[in-house]
Amino acid sequence: MKPLSELVRQHLRGLHPYIPGDQPDDAGWIKLNTNELPYSPPAEVSEAITAEIEKLQRYPNPRSQSLRDAVAGFHGLSPQQVIIGNGSDDVLNLLARAFGGKEHNTVESFPSYSLYPVVTAIAGGKIQSIPFGDDFSLPVQKLLDSAADLLFITCPNAPSGVRFPLEALRALAAGNQGILVIDEAYAEFADDTALSLLDEFSNTVITRTFSKAYGLAGLRVGYALAAAEIIRILDCIRDSYNVNRLSQAGAIAALKAHSIYGSHILEIRQTREWVRSSLLEFGWKVYPSEANFLFAAPVRDADGEMGLATATSLFNWLLDHKILVRHFPKHPLTAPFLRISIGTKSEMETFINEVRKWKTNELPV
Amino acid sequence: MKPLSELVRQHLRGLHPYIPGDQPDDAGWIKLNTNELPYSPPAEVSEAITAEIEKLQRYPNPRSQSLRDAVAGFHGLSPQQVIIGNGSDDVLNLLARAFGGKEHNTVESFPSYSLYPVVTAIAGGKIQSIPFGDDFSLPVQKLLDSAADLLFITCPNAPSGVRFPLEALRALAAGNQGILVIDEAYAEFADDTALSLLDEFSNTVITRTFSKAYGLAGLRVGYALAAAEIIRILDCIRDSYNVNRLSQAGAIAALKAHSIYGSHILEIRQTREWVRSSLLEFGWKVYPSEANFLFAAPVRDADGEMGLATATSLFNWLLDHKILVRHFPKHPLTAPFLRISIGTKSEMETFINEVRKWKTNELPV
Repeated sequence: MKPLSELVRQHLRGLHPYIPGDQPDDAGWIKLNTNELPYSPPAEVSEAITAEIEKLQRYPNPRSQSLRDAVAGFHGLSPQQVIIGNGSDDVLNLLARAFGGKEHNTVESFPSYSLYPVVTAIAGGKIQSIPFGDDFSLPVQKLLDSAADLLFITCPNAPSGVRFPLEALRALAAGNQGILVIDEAYAEFADDTALSLLDEFSNTVITRTFSKAYGLAGLRVGYALAAAEIIRILDCIRDSYNVNRLSQAGAIAALKAHSIYGSHILEIRQTREWVRSSLLEFGWKVYPSEANFLFAAPVRDADGEMGLATATSLFNWLLDHKILVRHFPKHPLTAPFLRISIGTKSEMETFINEVRKWKTNELPV
Repeated sequence: MKPLSELVRQHLRGLHPYIPGDQPDDAGWIKLNTNELPYSPPAEVSEAITAEIEKLQRYPNPRSQSLRDAVAGFHGLSPQQVIIGNGSDDVLNLLARAFGGKEHNTVESFPSYSLYPVVTAIAGGKIQSIPFGDDFSLPVQKLLDSAADLLFITCPNAPSGVRFPLEALRALAAGNQGILVIDEAYAEFADDTALSLLDEFSNTVITRTFSKAYGLAGLRVGYALAAAEIIRILDCIRDSYNVNRLSQAGAIAALKAHSIYGSHILEIRQTREWVRSSLLEFGWKVYPSEANFLFAAPVRDADGEMGLATATSLFNWLLDHKILVRHFPKHPLTAPFLRISIGTKSEMETFINEVRKWKTNELPV
């Protein structure tokens, strides 16, 4: 046998897997680390899934056609403009495979969803990461200068929660010569979306997910909206049965039960603003968020400093008290911050109480 | 904007999607075209899935760890030797992405599962298809001479149903310098498996699925068994949450309820042999099958000829009577045959009755 290091494709040698946020299996955690909704699915979704179980011996509809129709109807688009993925990660992966790779120029604004460099590398390419301007403003001219064949923008941005003005996105769509992917995983929590750009620009792809506002992260359903020609290419390379029966049925039911999610979203937005004002009162830096999380740099009474050490100290304090948040310590732009998902009002009160205890705590010797 | 034909990666231009068997949504069909089990899931599986629904707002375990542990325990392997896929198609796709591509030599015995050329092409490679010998014997020497870096063998074979002797597979594993993938999608219906080769050869990968013998095609769960070093590479390139919560829970429950499937499998095997002897009595050519389908070349009383026209005639007759089987008309090796999945005894009696009507029917003028 040839050595495995020779059999594995060259661009994959030395690759490391994407590390998702912790998913503890045991109960008792307040989980504010992966931007999940804190509510179980409504009865309509639960019933639609349960009704489908007796048909599980049959393959699903390979194109998820009824779900495409439902998504298209929901957004006022044609079903030819919709592809369904096994989570929006599946769709992002297909985009990297179709339009990325060694021969193309893949670009992201940085920091954004940390999956983009991973799917780019797996497709054999190397991503160019263009840092945001002050306070997470979109560096439009630098992004245009990058001459991207494939450009990933998360809007509202993760990890900051900041939404970019539609005019900035329109300038990117108009000026960019390649595919512009606007990852709207959090758009349902925001004041505006970029959906209107689909009518204007044939190079724009918008991705959405049922994992966040629809509270179905465990079901793995996402989708992309784009011109029919782009969708056709993605269809050529997706797994033929990429979305299972239960996921198709559950997502259709979630779309139909849309009004229920409206009240969830309102509650999350209100809680988010309450948490934000509490943290601002503590003297923290907190970006204005249009997502279901906050990106916040803590300070402690004893030293009043922001930075990696302070963020790490709070992260560990919370961990010791069974509260999980997310920390991206490796980059100076993100190291002073914690990303805090918005849970229920009660969970966030517990969180604020723990923060209060930590912040008045003496520094360790 | 650059033209889309320029933005899409070169090796994907002109690609066409894999065409799976028809999945009619309306009731009333006898569906013998995609090798599904004709039984709904047992209560144990149904209950495990239902219990998981209330946790759907949470991401699944990204590694499907409990399911890996269960599969490993079931086969007496270590969890490091197991990866779970969104169907075995996901795993086959990962194998093509990891070890195939333009720079590597990908080989299959032909005809086999028609997905291999598709995933090879999407990964940028071109598959070399080495035809089977007479009566679907495995062309071991020709396969070894092909110097495959990545070699796909379906055993029991689809579409023929023929199982290859373990000695022939051992010779391939021992002599091949690259990765040998033995796709055992139908192994639970067979008299023997190649699992023992995993202990002997570090280049051998065995893929399995819950879609066939476990009757969970609609749930999309499959897995690969291999040396830990191979699994680690596949883990680097899979989607981070590739298997959803309901699929993980359902598959674990299915493994636990294994004895129920034993009686299903027995019933399918008995029905298969009854259908086969009926077709042999009609004078057809029918390969001995160790899967849940038969590959059979029909003849009609009026002309007694096998061939594309005869198979097409029966295929359409059955279609007119709401019985779906599979026909691969494009290649001379497969054109005279129909692939007939084994349904319930009652469904197969209806099938045999329709065949009887067709075969004594006058030829169309």
